[in-house]
Amino acid sequence: MDLAIMGYGVVGSGVARLLARNNESIAARSMQPNMRLKYILDLREFPGDPFAPLVVHDVNLILDDPEIGIVAETMGGQHPAFEFVKACLERGKSVVTSNKELVATKGLELMQTAKAHNVNFLFEASVGGGIPIIRPLSQCLAANVISEVAGILNGTTNFILTKMFADGMPFDTALGLAQENGYAEKDPSADVDGHDACRKICILATLAFGRHVYPEQVRTEGVRGVATEDVLYAEHAGYNIKLIGRARRLEDGRVSAVVGPMLVPFDNLLANVNDVYNAIMIHGDAVEDVIFYGRGAGRFPTASAVVADMIDCAKHTQRRRFFDWETGGADYVAPAAQDVVSLYIRLRCGSPDETFAALRGLLPGAQKLSREGAQPHELALITPKMEEGAALAALRGRDVQSVMRLF
Amino acid sequence: MDLAIMGYGVVGSGVARLLARNNESIAARSMQPNMRLKYILDLREFPGDPFAPLVVHDVNLILDDPEIGIVAETMGGQHPAFEFVKACLERGKSVVTSNKELVATKGLELMQTAKAHNVNFLFEASVGGGIPIIRPLSQCLAANVISEVAGILNGTTNFILTKMFADGMPFDTALGLAQENGYAEKDPSADVDGHDACRKICILATLAFGRHVYPEQVRTEGVRGVATEDVLYAEHAGYNIKLIGRARRLEDGRVSAVVGPMLVPFDNLLANVNDVYNAIMIHGDAVEDVIFYGRGAGRFPTASAVVADMIDCAKHTQRRRFFDWETGGADYVAPAAQDVVSLYIRLRCGSPDETFAALRGLLPGAQKLSREGAQPHELALITPKMEEGAALAALRGRDVQSVMRLF
Repeated sequence: MDLAIMGYGVVGSGVARLLARNNESIAARSMQPNMRLKYILDLREFPGDPFAPLVVHDVNLILDDPEIGIVAETMGGQHPAFEFVKACLERGKSVVTSNKELVATKGLELMQTAKAHNVNFLFEASVGGGIPIIRPLSQCLAANVISEVAGILNGTTNFILTKMFADGMPFDTALGLAQENGYAEKDPSADVDGHDACRKICILATLAFGRHVYPEQVRTEGVRGVATEDVLYAEHAGYNIKLIGRARRLEDGRVSAVVGPMLVPFDNLLANVNDVYNAIMIHGDAVEDVIFYGRGAGRFPTASAVVADMIDCAKHTQRRRFFDWETGGADYVAPAAQDVVSLYIRLRCGSPDETFAALRGLLPGAQKLSREGAQPHELALITPKMEEGAALAALRGRDVQSVMRLF
Repeated sequence: MDLAIMGYGVVGSGVARLLARNNESIAARSMQPNMRLKYILDLREFPGDPFAPLVVHDVNLILDDPEIGIVAETMGGQHPAFEFVKACLERGKSVVTSNKELVATKGLELMQTAKAHNVNFLFEASVGGGIPIIRPLSQCLAANVISEVAGILNGTTNFILTKMFADGMPFDTALGLAQENGYAEKDPSADVDGHDACRKICILATLAFGRHVYPEQVRTEGVRGVATEDVLYAEHAGYNIKLIGRARRLEDGRVSAVVGPMLVPFDNLLANVNDVYNAIMIHGDAVEDVIFYGRGAGRFPTASAVVADMIDCAKHTQRRRFFDWETGGADYVAPAAQDVVSLYIRLRCGSPDETFAALRGLLPGAQKLSREGAQPHELALITPKMEEGAALAALRGRDVQSVMRLF
């Protein structure tokens, strides 16, 4: 069986190299001694690259070649990845992808196409890089009713927050350092504004709860609003700040799904996940909490997941029906304001003591926080657990600087 | 397809309850609408138990019933579990087990029996309770060459060590508390002396490196020797003490495999795994470090893994060949004394300063440790990385109180 890669960037080139490097053990595990990489589709040429002879520019070479049984899509983005993947599936080729945007937005349609043509569409690499998560969620925890999936899903922002906490760096300096190290793009918005984490929590929620959750249904905040003051208040109160994607099954059959910076207590393992690492927590009724940790991005970690999916496809030339989900519908995700949560709130005010006294009437049980170097007109507090909308209503008219959920 | 459970103890009764509780979703995932629990084999009667009508005492009822396609073995121990499991496999029934002793000692033979009869022998529940680890190791990381597997594999000892660290409890008090809470048996030796962790690292090493590692090949130390003084020295130097099972692939094709208390640096995620939780780290050449965390024992977490394996068997009535390993042989595991490691050493001596000066000549780069309340004739140090046997030779004739590896 022959293989093709679509998109020869960081991940695609990692896939080519990993297939070559661990050739022998991969052949043994896939039980396909003749698994051969035949084409690499890319618009560019790669003179001098060891895989340059395989590079082609016309997707039809792959689509029309009956020897190609498995295609790895590592182009990223929605178009033309969607059209290419769909065409491959329609021609009876299994597809594996690392493209979270594609899975989060078009996963349901592509899964149905794969089903109709009795081939596989696998996407372990789309969440958590090389961390095994999609298969454990859908197979290993199959005996469980899953009630929650949450985690640190973006390495770039976790690196930035780690630097803000450990080294007291302001956000902009930490972002600059992430860019210098190649962890953040020149335009960092997909990471920093939470869109990347949003796509991943959509995929996880879809698999955990069985209905498609779309990115536009998930309230998404990034880390730009996290100030040094917030870091100091959180630390003093025993919390780390992490960008968390979180989805929960609600009793009425809907789900809650949000992305945003949250205060995570020090004794929670997620608070101890630093630098570019990711960690994903799943709560099942039988297994309780399990956490999966590792590098959430990078050439070889991501290629590891792509190639594992290729091996799986090679072993199962007939479609494996692990993944099946339905359409969710417009009302499937409950408004975030209805979630019952504790909030961290920082505001500017004339007199912190008077303001806190006034707010405590509206937010009974609220706790005032302190920090080193607190300014006179600054108040930070943690609300009791209540409907988020109600807590925010109590703050109406106040000069609120920062709002974050407690994890 | 009908099911049977052999052994109606903590785990077996959890399996029966979980099958009943999540009946609908389990049927959907296994694509077997008629999966029915038919027999529970146990020597005892369970009057009043909801599953009492299914209890039988004769294994032949299960063996001779052609409707039984999948058997869960949750008896524990080697005998008669081995004979029963083997007979089931020979009659063409797939077997799933939570019995680590059985897999660690007889796994190779049972796997070969399963192969010969084209049925499955699965054992996700034998390591890490409900934490998905066996399947991720053999499937999700299939593109990797694994160089190391290590972790906190026993919840009882991790609870004890957590109490010694967090609350300054002496070992005996912490053990008593573990017994009160039902985490430790009345005879705690399987946990406390490391045998349980040893069986689990054998299973992990076998799967990771492809050859069977037997418990008697693994140098195994428990936690009885961890003294309050060691806790204080470790903490002061920035380490937690954890009972670690660790297996590494050596360059000459052999493996290193040991179980013992080790000093884990605070910034390693494993140092932050507390109470009865387990965590398993795998290092692959592409994925780098991944960690799996969760409850390593308990009725429902373990049943979660058993039932996931049953679902897998139901979906694949033909044998899936994920697991294949060979015999290792007597020389396959290198002597632990040849491992290159840093050691923590505590000894009694006349003059700590003079002794340290003398030892530093033999252990160049050794670091002296300090603690609150240190006694005058007490010395603790960390050796440089060197062959363990050579480091211990340098201490010959000294009154050594404690030796532990650094993780």
